[in-house]
Amino acid sequence: MLINKISNLPRLAQPFLTVVRMNSTYTAVQLGTPGTVDHRIYVKAGAAGTPISPVHDIPLTTDTSAVYNMVVEIPRFSNAKLEMSAKLPYNPIVQDKNKKTGAPRFVRNLFPFKGYIHNYGALPQTWEDPTVIDPHTGFPGDGDPLDVCEIGGAVGTPGQVKQVKVVGCMALIDENETDWKILAIDTADPLAAEVNDVADVERVFPGLLTATHTWFRDYKKPDGKPANSFASFKTTAGEESLVQSRDFALRVIDECNQAWKRGATSYVNDSTGEIAGLATNGQTVQESEGKPYEEWFYAKNE
Amino acid sequence: MLINKISNLPRLAQPFLTVVRMNSTYTAVQLGTPGTVDHRIYVKAGAAGTPISPVHDIPLTTDTSAVYNMVVEIPRFSNAKLEMSAKLPYNPIVQDKNKKTGAPRFVRNLFPFKGYIHNYGALPQTWEDPTVIDPHTGFPGDGDPLDVCEIGGAVGTPGQVKQVKVVGCMALIDENETDWKILAIDTADPLAAEVNDVADVERVFPGLLTATHTWFRDYKKPDGKPANSFASFKTTAGEESLVQSRDFALRVIDECNQAWKRGATSYVNDSTGEIAGLATNGQTVQESEGKPYEEWFYAKNE
Repeated sequence: MLINKISNLPRLAQPFLTVVRMNSTYTAVQLGTPGTVDHRIYVKAGAAGTPISPVHDIPLTTDTSAVYNMVVEIPRFSNAKLEMSAKLPYNPIVQDKNKKTGAPRFVRNLFPFKGYIHNYGALPQTWEDPTVIDPHTGFPGDGDPLDVCEIGGAVGTPGQVKQVKVVGCMALIDENETDWKILAIDTADPLAAEVNDVADVERVFPGLLTATHTWFRDYKKPDGKPANSFASFKTTAGEESLVQSRDFALRVIDECNQAWKRGATSYVNDSTGEIAGLATNGQTVQESEGKPYEEWFYAKNE
Repeated sequence: MLINKISNLPRLAQPFLTVVRMNSTYTAVQLGTPGTVDHRIYVKAGAAGTPISPVHDIPLTTDTSAVYNMVVEIPRFSNAKLEMSAKLPYNPIVQDKNKKTGAPRFVRNLFPFKGYIHNYGALPQTWEDPTVIDPHTGFPGDGDPLDVCEIGGAVGTPGQVKQVKVVGCMALIDENETDWKILAIDTADPLAAEVNDVADVERVFPGLLTATHTWFRDYKKPDGKPANSFASFKTTAGEESLVQSRDFALRVIDECNQAWKRGATSYVNDSTGEIAGLATNGQTVQESEGKPYEEWFYAKNE
């Protein structure tokens, strides 16, 4: 099944969202060497730089209505598989390992892409409950916080907390588990005001939704695994679609926030104690300077 | 016009080329900071590390029949526009500048690509003579050495001298000048033995020829320039194609080698004198370690 009818997706009337970038109150500090299994990124809050858990201690939404916090794990174009630890105090972002060999995991470059094609991360205070059948897909959750694909032009950094607008979602089904991918855009992106729903994504970033589908469908093939699939749903216009609306995404987020509130039991909730070396050896993760060659250029074809 | 019939291109009978990677006798040393207009990469030869001109002082072919030397200017996935200087002694690889502003030039990421999609460089001892009408295209040469798109999996480094097999070519027409793109593969690539002609490229790297066409067609659009075009020619099977055979490419290379021998007048030929700072401040450009996430994975679609 293809993502079809994308260009026919209804452009829902949306209130124009005035979005103001807050100065982030969060910083990220890393230990170890990027690309090795010792690499860890801790998120700190406030001027005092108190370590916090990006899973539990960052509010899901900001003071601005309809703007969400997102924790960046994997910057666009990069390959190292980084994710928030379920077991370590403060849930730092850690380098994922191959379960058998212990080697650091990298995603392959799926032609024609380089690394991840989004700033990939998660929404704090959400959980895809693995003990509950997702009411939309019929499969239980994957036991992780909700994944986010941020589509703005700037390349993010691991541990960066972005303020994002939610614009849609896709329901990845991975080995009989539900693994929603929330589509969002950094409110600081110059194009953010133009993008309020999935039809806007296709208009402003033509081809990106199809690329997102292709990428997630294929990205486990290099490991010898089969293609992933996405669940399709009827749009308000009555057509089957693999990409769901902003309203649909907001419902999913709320459901996963409720699940987190009930208790995201697989993620340790322990923001106490010292982290060895963090004060003395940790290096601040610098946010990108917004180099002119970070973003994608969408060529218009004659 | 599209690259069509690629899958129908004749697979010419080719002698199986036994290719042996020579230990490179060339090293590259850089001055200045990458991404700035002061960045320069000099190529040195032999154990003594004598600076040489990559345009004039590297032989076009190696001792192994049908294996060519190629000078890498721009590594795959990178954005900085690096090219061999026409004016500086030793023709170092320099950071290209915007002619009006003097700012360093970067290519934009043309969705869905990141930076350049090949290891991009040139063939030494070749020149596309701007005073002569190219007999194939009807347009004069662009006055530069022949460009090469190296398609192997490993990401190259600026100033690296690769030994490559030529597998085809495309005739880019850029502002009424002929700018051939030779398609080649590093003889050290694990797939090199399988790739002898353009039909092999499409079989082993499916989609890469079309991507190459799209990329060069569009890459000047971000600067407000129109799409580039490619000249098409009849294949031996009698079909029009934008991608030409290995035999065609070898003819073009020979013609451009003859032009260089007549005198590549726009490229200074001066490999004498000291380069300030090269001995004391220059840093050796390390060749890539062949990280597992460098190469592209070509997913098979069901």
